[in-house]
Amino acid sequence: MAKTKLTAISGFPEFLPPEQILFAKVLDIIREGYELYGFSPIETPAVERKEVLTSKGGNEKEIYALSRLAAGEGENPNTELALHFDLTVPLARYVAMHKNKLAFPFRRYQIQKVWRGERSQAGRSREFYQCDIDVIGRGSLSLLTDAEIPSIIYQIFRRMKIGPFVIRINNRKILQGYFQSLGIQADQIEGITRIIDKLEKIGTEKVVSELTNKTALEKATAQQMIDFLGNELKTDDMLTQLNSMSQINEQFSQGVKELAIVVDGIRDFRVPEDSFKIDLSVARGLDYYTGTVYETVLVEHPGIGSICSGGRYDDLASFFTNEKLPGVGLSIGVTRLVSKLIEEGLLKKGAATVAQVLVASMDENRISDYLRMGTELRNAGIPTEVYLEKARLGNQLKYADKKGFKLAIIAGENEFSENTVQIKNLITGEPSVCPLTDMVQQVKKTLSAQEPKL
Amino acid sequence: MAKTKLTAISGFPEFLPPEQILFAKVLDIIREGYELYGFSPIETPAVERKEVLTSKGGNEKEIYALSRLAAGEGENPNTELALHFDLTVPLARYVAMHKNKLAFPFRRYQIQKVWRGERSQAGRSREFYQCDIDVIGRGSLSLLTDAEIPSIIYQIFRRMKIGPFVIRINNRKILQGYFQSLGIQADQIEGITRIIDKLEKIGTEKVVSELTNKTALEKATAQQMIDFLGNELKTDDMLTQLNSMSQINEQFSQGVKELAIVVDGIRDFRVPEDSFKIDLSVARGLDYYTGTVYETVLVEHPGIGSICSGGRYDDLASFFTNEKLPGVGLSIGVTRLVSKLIEEGLLKKGAATVAQVLVASMDENRISDYLRMGTELRNAGIPTEVYLEKARLGNQLKYADKKGFKLAIIAGENEFSENTVQIKNLITGEPSVCPLTDMVQQVKKTLSAQEPKL
Repeated sequence: MAKTKLTAISGFPEFLPPEQILFAKVLDIIREGYELYGFSPIETPAVERKEVLTSKGGNEKEIYALSRLAAGEGENPNTELALHFDLTVPLARYVAMHKNKLAFPFRRYQIQKVWRGERSQAGRSREFYQCDIDVIGRGSLSLLTDAEIPSIIYQIFRRMKIGPFVIRINNRKILQGYFQSLGIQADQIEGITRIIDKLEKIGTEKVVSELTNKTALEKATAQQMIDFLGNELKTDDMLTQLNSMSQINEQFSQGVKELAIVVDGIRDFRVPEDSFKIDLSVARGLDYYTGTVYETVLVEHPGIGSICSGGRYDDLASFFTNEKLPGVGLSIGVTRLVSKLIEEGLLKKGAATVAQVLVASMDENRISDYLRMGTELRNAGIPTEVYLEKARLGNQLKYADKKGFKLAIIAGENEFSENTVQIKNLITGEPSVCPLTDMVQQVKKTLSAQEPKL
Repeated sequence: MAKTKLTAISGFPEFLPPEQILFAKVLDIIREGYELYGFSPIETPAVERKEVLTSKGGNEKEIYALSRLAAGEGENPNTELALHFDLTVPLARYVAMHKNKLAFPFRRYQIQKVWRGERSQAGRSREFYQCDIDVIGRGSLSLLTDAEIPSIIYQIFRRMKIGPFVIRINNRKILQGYFQSLGIQADQIEGITRIIDKLEKIGTEKVVSELTNKTALEKATAQQMIDFLGNELKTDDMLTQLNSMSQINEQFSQGVKELAIVVDGIRDFRVPEDSFKIDLSVARGLDYYTGTVYETVLVEHPGIGSICSGGRYDDLASFFTNEKLPGVGLSIGVTRLVSKLIEEGLLKKGAATVAQVLVASMDENRISDYLRMGTELRNAGIPTEVYLEKARLGNQLKYADKKGFKLAIIAGENEFSENTVQIKNLITGEPSVCPLTDMVQQVKKTLSAQEPKL
């Protein structure tokens, strides 16, 4: 029979078990972190009606629409449905639709795949996971919420053990007020900050020349802008300087006030001083956010870019309801993050199995005993596989090695006659023998002595 | 501004937080159960190339194809991609594609959404979760694996606490051999067993008449078939009777031998006698399974139908590779299951928050103290929300009630002056006061005294 061709689909990543196990652990850390702060899960369908997804416009090219591969006679193969491209539009639709059944502030997390149908670029996925939290207020929402988000970021990435990181904080009103005072339109801001972002890479001179070439800014203004946005003052000095500039305009002054409150709050949330800083160059999709904005970088791996980002928006669901629903949110693009962390060696792929123990089966007449051992270990909460095929012990141990079990239980005629089992530590290679009745205790001891996994 | 219309999409279920939290707990139980037995996670993209999904044929009508909603100039909006309709075809493609990087027997679980584009019928979803496990052998696979699956089912549904259940086991070879001996073609078997399934509901007489009307069977043959397939013998008596019929044909006899081995194994896996039985009427998609088949029913809620099903197949990936890859699998259609269990009152919706504690904020000058309390509770692993808005205590407690927190921490001028906090048990309404330094301990004690959640 002719076989169907097997090829990977570009932009749709797929992991082998060791990466997938690592990925699942990272998702668990994120989920536990979100839940510790009282964010509750919701999940929306992978699809929305096309008109919901295109409410805002501008994203049509990246949206995948659904059609029936083979509709029945007289049926229209096209549907009104398309795959969501982020979790924010579905959240807006969800909150607008169910708002009378939700308690506000509404705190939810959402860990789901999203799809983007643009041509796949190097390293860009067309299907990937986002891990979002948002707090939505009904009418208003305290600025303390803006301060809570960095504390959640801090706690999650500390537990991920991927080295030092800094949460960079800014307020879009400061940027807008400042740019407005220079006569620059709002729609230019993102482009300008993107050029200024290259300061470290290409140096001041080239950034100035790029700014003057691409934006019609004068050289002096460009230089002034770089000095302002790129300044590296410590948090309190930065706030002092920003305060001293408050006369620039109302918007700028409002942004500085908000930023000061948020910084106070971040300290009250016990985020250490070296884990956050004010960075005036952080812009993050300025057409969406209206106040606080965040991004986070790994100190020793700046090349990875921002590992999560978010901010405050005035009105979540203006396309769906007249009710004002301000919010603050954060998104971790975890598919890209995990791939990058593996590439950089910050997360290490481990075993190809979640089981820790393999019970070898040396004697097929003793299978009932091997199965009982497996049941005892599982009853103690230890993930265990009993080898069920007929194979030589050597081949079973090769299998254990290949999959990365932590230890093997071995029992043959000798052990059964003495009511013992052999526990082979597969990390050190060291064997030990213990009474059958002590097996569970001994396994726990051996496992806890091995180095902890992520 | 005109608002985009908000309507639910038929067949695409969406939960409010209480149901979603419950759903997430059920997924956790399933996942933990699978992992205890050493099944490791994999995840395949939501899409496959169309030709992969249609390899076997017959499913085209239920497949959703993807197209670009707005392709660029000169680009074809159609893609070669479509959403997977189950997790078995993707598994077959995955194993065939990566087989040289996997260790066999390959044991994986896969918890993902699938999509079926047929017109939505009452209670049928077009997007739903499947929770699958499969063990795939390279060339061969021990029958003990067939016995392991019921032990996993037993362990998971016992931990779900949804009342007594019975895993019904059969072997397709017995059915095929038996039907063949009556001159009935393989493609009729599923239809016939579906009619016989109605025995309890409509009685023998009506089943006989339906069989003779719809299948051209003679009345005596129909009656004989009902007697055989519907018999309620105990496991060992059943095996004795089946053995005594082994002369029927080779296939029948082979099926009986396999079934006897599987029953032995199930007992070795410590599945209690009252949790499994041989049921010769279980057929489960006969064009797919080739040996052991399972389904599971709740003893006190037979109307829910089978809560999980699976079986043995000779060759997983014959469309993709010449290598023989036999397997055994199980699938839990958890979206439907959870909806049904909630409907029947077997799972009870609980809180709308995963947080257990709400720290009320009565005095805005003390916000730093409230945040510190929140941090202490979280550091002790207790999911906690600090109320960050300005609101009267009464309104904060209403919010706590609406969301279903287990207890509230309350501290005002009195408490701060005495270095105490009030802990209000929101289940009993009972308040208690304790020194601030004992807060975490006291919270743990109060929580553990409240009835455990699922």
